[in-house]
Amino acid sequence: MTAAPTTTDRNGESLADRGRLMVQGEDRPGIVSAVSGLLSEHGANIVSLDQHSTDPAGGRFFQRTEFHLPGFAARRAELEARLAEALEPLRMSWRLSEASRRKRVAIFASRMDHCLLDLLWRERRGELSMTTTMVVDNHPDLADAVRPFDVPYFHVPVGKDKADAERRQLELVRGNVDFVVLARYMQILSGDFLEQVGVPIINIHHSFLPAFMGAGPYQRAKERGVKLIGATAHYVTEDLDEGPIIEQDVARVSHADTVADHVRTGADVERRVLARAVGWHCEDRVFRDGNSTVVFG
Amino acid sequence: MTAAPTTTDRNGESLADRGRLMVQGEDRPGIVSAVSGLLSEHGANIVSLDQHSTDPAGGRFFQRTEFHLPGFAARRAELEARLAEALEPLRMSWRLSEASRRKRVAIFASRMDHCLLDLLWRERRGELSMTTTMVVDNHPDLADAVRPFDVPYFHVPVGKDKADAERRQLELVRGNVDFVVLARYMQILSGDFLEQVGVPIINIHHSFLPAFMGAGPYQRAKERGVKLIGATAHYVTEDLDEGPIIEQDVARVSHADTVADHVRTGADVERRVLARAVGWHCEDRVFRDGNSTVVFG
Amino acid sequence: MTAAPTTTDRNGESLADRGRLMVQGEDRPGIVSAVSGLLSEHGANIVSLDQHSTDPAGGRFFQRTEFHLPGFAARRAELEARLAEALEPLRMSWRLSEASRRKRVAIFASRMDHCLLDLLWRERRGELSMTTTMVVDNHPDLADAVRPFDVPYFHVPVGKDKADAERRQLELVRGNVDFVVLARYMQILSGDFLEQVGVPIINIHHSFLPAFMGAGPYQRAKERGVKLIGATAHYVTEDLDEGPIIEQDVARVSHADTVADHVRTGADVERRVLARAVGWHCEDRVFRDGNSTVVFG
Amino acid sequence: MTAAPTTTDRNGESLADRGRLMVQGEDRPGIVSAVSGLLSEHGANIVSLDQHSTDPAGGRFFQRTEFHLPGFAARRAELEARLAEALEPLRMSWRLSEASRRKRVAIFASRMDHCLLDLLWRERRGELSMTTTMVVDNHPDLADAVRPFDVPYFHVPVGKDKADAERRQLELVRGNVDFVVLARYMQILSGDFLEQVGVPIINIHHSFLPAFMGAGPYQRAKERGVKLIGATAHYVTEDLDEGPIIEQDVARVSHADTVADHVRTGADVERRVLARAVGWHCEDRVFRDGNSTVVFG
Repeated sequence: MTAAPTTTDRNGESLADRGRLMVQGEDRPGIVSAVSGLLSEHGANIVSLDQHSTDPAGGRFFQRTEFHLPGFAARRAELEARLAEALEPLRMSWRLSEASRRKRVAIFASRMDHCLLDLLWRERRGELSMTTTMVVDNHPDLADAVRPFDVPYFHVPVGKDKADAERRQLELVRGNVDFVVLARYMQILSGDFLEQVGVPIINIHHSFLPAFMGAGPYQRAKERGVKLIGATAHYVTEDLDEGPIIEQDVARVSHADTVADHVRTGADVERRVLARAVGWHCEDRVFRDGNSTVVFG
Repeated sequence: MTAAPTTTDRNGESLADRGRLMVQGEDRPGIVSAVSGLLSEHGANIVSLDQHSTDPAGGRFFQRTEFHLPGFAARRAELEARLAEALEPLRMSWRLSEASRRKRVAIFASRMDHCLLDLLWRERRGELSMTTTMVVDNHPDLADAVRPFDVPYFHVPVGKDKADAERRQLELVRGNVDFVVLARYMQILSGDFLEQVGVPIINIHHSFLPAFMGAGPYQRAKERGVKLIGATAHYVTEDLDEGPIIEQDVARVSHADTVADHVRTGADVERRVLARAVGWHCEDRVFRDGNSTVVFG
Repeated sequence: MTAAPTTTDRNGESLADRGRLMVQGEDRPGIVSAVSGLLSEHGANIVSLDQHSTDPAGGRFFQRTEFHLPGFAARRAELEARLAEALEPLRMSWRLSEASRRKRVAIFASRMDHCLLDLLWRERRGELSMTTTMVVDNHPDLADAVRPFDVPYFHVPVGKDKADAERRQLELVRGNVDFVVLARYMQILSGDFLEQVGVPIINIHHSFLPAFMGAGPYQRAKERGVKLIGATAHYVTEDLDEGPIIEQDVARVSHADTVADHVRTGADVERRVLARAVGWHCEDRVFRDGNSTVVFG
Repeated sequence: MTAAPTTTDRNGESLADRGRLMVQGEDRPGIVSAVSGLLSEHGANIVSLDQHSTDPAGGRFFQRTEFHLPGFAARRAELEARLAEALEPLRMSWRLSEASRRKRVAIFASRMDHCLLDLLWRERRGELSMTTTMVVDNHPDLADAVRPFDVPYFHVPVGKDKADAERRQLELVRGNVDFVVLARYMQILSGDFLEQVGVPIINIHHSFLPAFMGAGPYQRAKERGVKLIGATAHYVTEDLDEGPIIEQDVARVSHADTVADHVRTGADVERRVLARAVGWHCEDRVFRDGNSTVVFG
């Protein structure tokens, strides 16, 4: 199950021969010049370049370069060899991707439809450079809503033996996706699952200032009179809800809103924040930097 | 030390004969009608009325009524007697205020000038219906900055014996102010102080989604890659930084911003949020509802 | 084609016996008291009351009162008689509505799906107190996308004889809807249509600071380097795009975004702003005040 | 009157040996590589690099590079010669600046203090890499407010002969400033002045969606029921209020706010937007691109 390459980007521009190079490592003099020189010698024209250094003296270095290189697909192996030669002695890690290749994603859901449907709808509109290869749901409720999008829908109930469900999920996704989105998936994934799935996982959850940890956060936020409801999209790590943040946003509420209104307002923020985070991830704009991120948005 | 009455509101309209009635209690049928009927019979014209009920069946009731009553100052005692007669049997608590009377405030500060100066500047512009009767600072640093505003400045250092400083602070403020603002005052006030001061205290502090409790919150927020920096204004209770929230807001940051940038962005949000909270408090727009608030903003 | 009454509001609370009274007119002393007294005598318990006066001396007065009255449906005629008696001498215009009765709406569209689908999806979720009785489209493109929502879809092409299309549209909507939403409907409606349709029409369009009137606004906004893309929802009047504003919002863009990105960002803001405006209209929260509005949001 | 060089940036990092290179022109392959290679050969370490191309095929190219070069001040002439050699054949325009050199600014004002005082206060706090060498005011009202900041204040009344006032203004600023800020300066500057002053001018003005051109914009915005009040900071060109936009923002208002409230809300947005625009200009983050801008914020 592979995704068909796209031929234009979200602005209708041709993506043939468009590549991206992501480099990161310990900052040292001459890196930007080395990378851009190498691309240039190879006949690549730099379309956009974003660079960030956490500290020019001994910090970490991040660079995303989007370039145009006629015949890129054919010349990729050669370019990779040259990059390895140049960047590995500098102990830089790097990755090359073809802009025309959409990322394949599995969306995990649980009853709530707002994040799931918004992603499917944006994909259909051509806003997201991804192909949803499957929806995995631990409840059967959303099957009807997903059907019009022509995406395979798998109902994988999670019973007492959660390991069993995770085995089934791994069978479905392993090798078939480039990343996973938890679109309000209400089950905690085990450390085992995270290790074996081998691809990044993006999660979305509500956020408040301050946080209300534990049960009933909306109720408790209401009891404290919060005026803003937020959402955070982040990469999943073993520390539940504590992974590197990709995007956040808030919406305003008032005393006149009920807890149910807060939940609805939260849903609106969640789908907006998740869509931005997923879009950036699909375009290789997000670098992980320890438990933080660098987002060339 | 009493504040001079103002003769116009922040829009230049006359405040003579303008009163406000704040009522709260257990919700019951007929309250709105009883209150508005009583004002009407008394010859008062309702200028604005805000009402909120947390639940029409057995919830709590809040009403703020602003009215015009010719000769209000002279007829206040009579109106109060009638209100007592009508509202006390219903076990409603209520309060009457004259719009022309600015609230007197003591601003507590500690080195950081942004919240303090913004309040003084807004007061001078006529944006806040208050009179700052004193600035109390545990450091001497801001004396020069305060001087051009013609406000008494008291330096009350807080040494080992914090109780001693609090005694001095109480001597200054008791009877002289209607509320206190902690404009980035970096000392924790004792439960004793809160009890004896006898007036509401408004505090401002930074906020994140999620919260980073304890030391070095900005550093830790940066390490997690937060994208929003927030601020919360709240009434001070014995639970430090846990009192009823009056107002919140956020501003956007990115990986390109340093911790110092985050602090500066936070300062901008803090002064904006605090000014709004103080302005609403001065106009009797904030009701406390347990550990929450009703804000008729 | 009538909409089924709903039995709970968007928070799951019972709407049986819940009424709303909307009053507006020239401000005069005693109005709030007269209205609330009348409801109270009638046995109604006021659930929420919003009042606004543009100027207590000779301004215009607006009041929205939501109340609980056991047996409201049966007693409606009697209450209306009493209201007429009380309010007509004061030359107040007023309207009574049952909260349990969803408003019936026709959504007009033209190829672009974002506003249309967002409204249908929110209605299905129970967020909007309305029943979409039909979608009217001058292109056939969105038929498939609408089908899963089980809403009648009418394709009414607009050819050279626009009057002909408008006749067909009027046949469809007259008597069958309580309001019309133009969800990116790209045809200008004639003054004749507006007059004959007899119900409010809500429109959504892009907005910039400053405005770029005429053709190609996104291109021209880009050429000026605008940093915010906005949307405005308003009631339709004969002055195209100049009617009373119900709601507005903006989103941030940068030089790195293309014109196509701006359009997409605009679509996101449009659906959010339109949903809020429609939701408030459905709950009788919007009063027209000349070419302005009073929104008890 | 020259500004003293600063030794640390707004984050407290040393600025000695820190340079910035701004390049712009017609996009062509190899530019990024040529620029970064040249800096690298020269021993400069790239601290941050931002690049933007309006269109990789025949568009315009913009690059801002911040670098560390030991002994930069002494080696500047040599580096400039090399840059001229490399970039002029490519018909690129370029500019080199020392990060430690604060830009000198004249602030023009007229009675309203909010933008002026906010800039002076931010400068004093070390937030803006600039030195205000003078305040030029066509009214005497703000002299007292400026005095505590120790900045020369010149009262230049504008009478019937505006050319006379402009002559006086030119005498003051020519050669003495690197840019001018119009901080709610309420006079229109002549084309002659713009030509002769020879430095960029940044202006701030209110903005609405849609715009209300001509007299009384706040009143007219109120009459249309606008829900957002905005501000736009832009470079001044001969087309009044039509120059390239640097930054914009908005704040929310409601029907309950008066025109005077709108003006106050607008003032808050104006000072925030202007401070951001001025800060970016001081750090060479803003490129003009025809009537648009590229802001590496």
